[in-house]
Amino acid sequence: MTQGPAVLERTLDADLGALATERMRSIGIEVHTGIRVDTLEGQHGQVRRVGCPDGVGFDADVVVLGLGSRPEVALAKEAGIPLGETGAVAVNTRQQTRVERIWAAGDCAEALHRVSQRAVNLHLGTIANKQGRVAGINIGGEYATFPGVLGTAITKVCELEIARTGLTETEATGAGFRYVVATLDSTTTAGYWPDAATMRIKLLAEQGTGRLLGAQIVGGPGAGKRIDVVATVLWNHMRVDEMLNLDLAYAPPFASVWDPVLIAARKAWEALAAPGLARPQGT
Amino acid sequence: MTQGPAVLERTLDADLGALATERMRSIGIEVHTGIRVDTLEGQHGQVRRVGCPDGVGFDADVVVLGLGSRPEVALAKEAGIPLGETGAVAVNTRQQTRVERIWAAGDCAEALHRVSQRAVNLHLGTIANKQGRVAGINIGGEYATFPGVLGTAITKVCELEIARTGLTETEATGAGFRYVVATLDSTTTAGYWPDAATMRIKLLAEQGTGRLLGAQIVGGPGAGKRIDVVATVLWNHMRVDEMLNLDLAYAPPFASVWDPVLIAARKAWEALAAPGLARPQGT
Repeated sequence: MTQGPAVLERTLDADLGALATERMRSIGIEVHTGIRVDTLEGQHGQVRRVGCPDGVGFDADVVVLGLGSRPEVALAKEAGIPLGETGAVAVNTRQQTRVERIWAAGDCAEALHRVSQRAVNLHLGTIANKQGRVAGINIGGEYATFPGVLGTAITKVCELEIARTGLTETEATGAGFRYVVATLDSTTTAGYWPDAATMRIKLLAEQGTGRLLGAQIVGGPGAGKRIDVVATVLWNHMRVDEMLNLDLAYAPPFASVWDPVLIAARKAWEALAAPGLARPQGT
Repeated sequence: MTQGPAVLERTLDADLGALATERMRSIGIEVHTGIRVDTLEGQHGQVRRVGCPDGVGFDADVVVLGLGSRPEVALAKEAGIPLGETGAVAVNTRQQTRVERIWAAGDCAEALHRVSQRAVNLHLGTIANKQGRVAGINIGGEYATFPGVLGTAITKVCELEIARTGLTETEATGAGFRYVVATLDSTTTAGYWPDAATMRIKLLAEQGTGRLLGAQIVGGPGAGKRIDVVATVLWNHMRVDEMLNLDLAYAPPFASVWDPVLIAARKAWEALAAPGLARPQGT
């Protein structure tokens, strides 16, 4: 049940969110979108019913609230440690706050987004762990820097895998990028393989430069962790045409002979048709 | 049954080959190594028995021969088209042979290995497809170049996944590299996850520069396609220390919070202890 028009609305663009919603329904999950929860009703100290507007309600044995999170900066504020424009603690690449000998890492701290080159505040265990290591090395008197984030994230709902990295359309637009979109429907293995599951990959590429900006994946087993290839492409600021010949692994139980990531890149490249972009190597 | 000391002896180094052999045995496959097949005996036009030296033999219903392959260059030789030092047809980056208006692509042609910077002749569908596309574009009067290969390959034996990219120890030594090795035993998901399967990753990093040279993976479901992340790292000529903070996707069904690829990179970085290599960013 979500107030938004689709599940995961801050993680995925509306189109991929709608696909995720549809896939969840197809595996027997009742998904209610665009609906607000007003009350949780209990009996004998246990929740029994979720109440919504207009007399709508649902019986419940367990309620899990996914409300998002905000950085906990009360201590920093009290101590006079400056926050950044995201509302989280501003840090440099060594995880140092603006106040000498005070360090911050994890959910309370900002990080540089490697694609938008803006400060972001993402609450992910991966980022917290890596920033914590960098802060620890520096606090211990050594020297380390944190090179920034891509906002790579993944989740699983039964057999459904959902992943993202870089910028969504909303985020790309917000950061002032002009981009093209390529969406590819493919399979997690060779199409004829008995275990083949459907998978959709969406790529964003910057107009003019052809640089990859972000990706979203929704699909069956084996779909999600493909986001790591795209994250490594993004990390290296590659253009989509530079992805076309990437030497990715193929055998029928794992992929088509052109991995779907590569076919999606080719679609993005074709969609660019960008004036001023010379026809590059390997295309 | 293989004449070599382990299965996949030209694909994996001996240590990972031994692991693959052991894992295959543990799933109930009878593996015989270091044994030569002398005869195939049949009855009524069907194979019945495989004969080996010293009176050893095995009953058989089906025999599959995996003998490797050689480039088919008879036509090229007759036509006077020069071969390269691998014995396959020499081509430039446009897939053009040394003879005007004659093009070659796929198993009969050489390719540049992006790590060793040497010509190789690898018989993989991925390479053949990509070279064929480049040749076709050029034959059609347009311009395309093939940027080279990493020799990324993957295979599956029941639930066991086996993958490699870049150079093995044998290949790295043959190409004159000095390197360090990092081997990591980990799991395909968070260790506590019910589906966690074991996985071994082996990385090679060049002494002095710290550049990644190659990787091999043997493990359960979800292990193999991780090779694509390493292949994308190799494609970009990254050092192992540059891998440490890669923003890879984490959720317990998919990985530990530090993906095993990153932990292996850290082990390789620690193993380098290379004089002359400045302590770089993010370490």
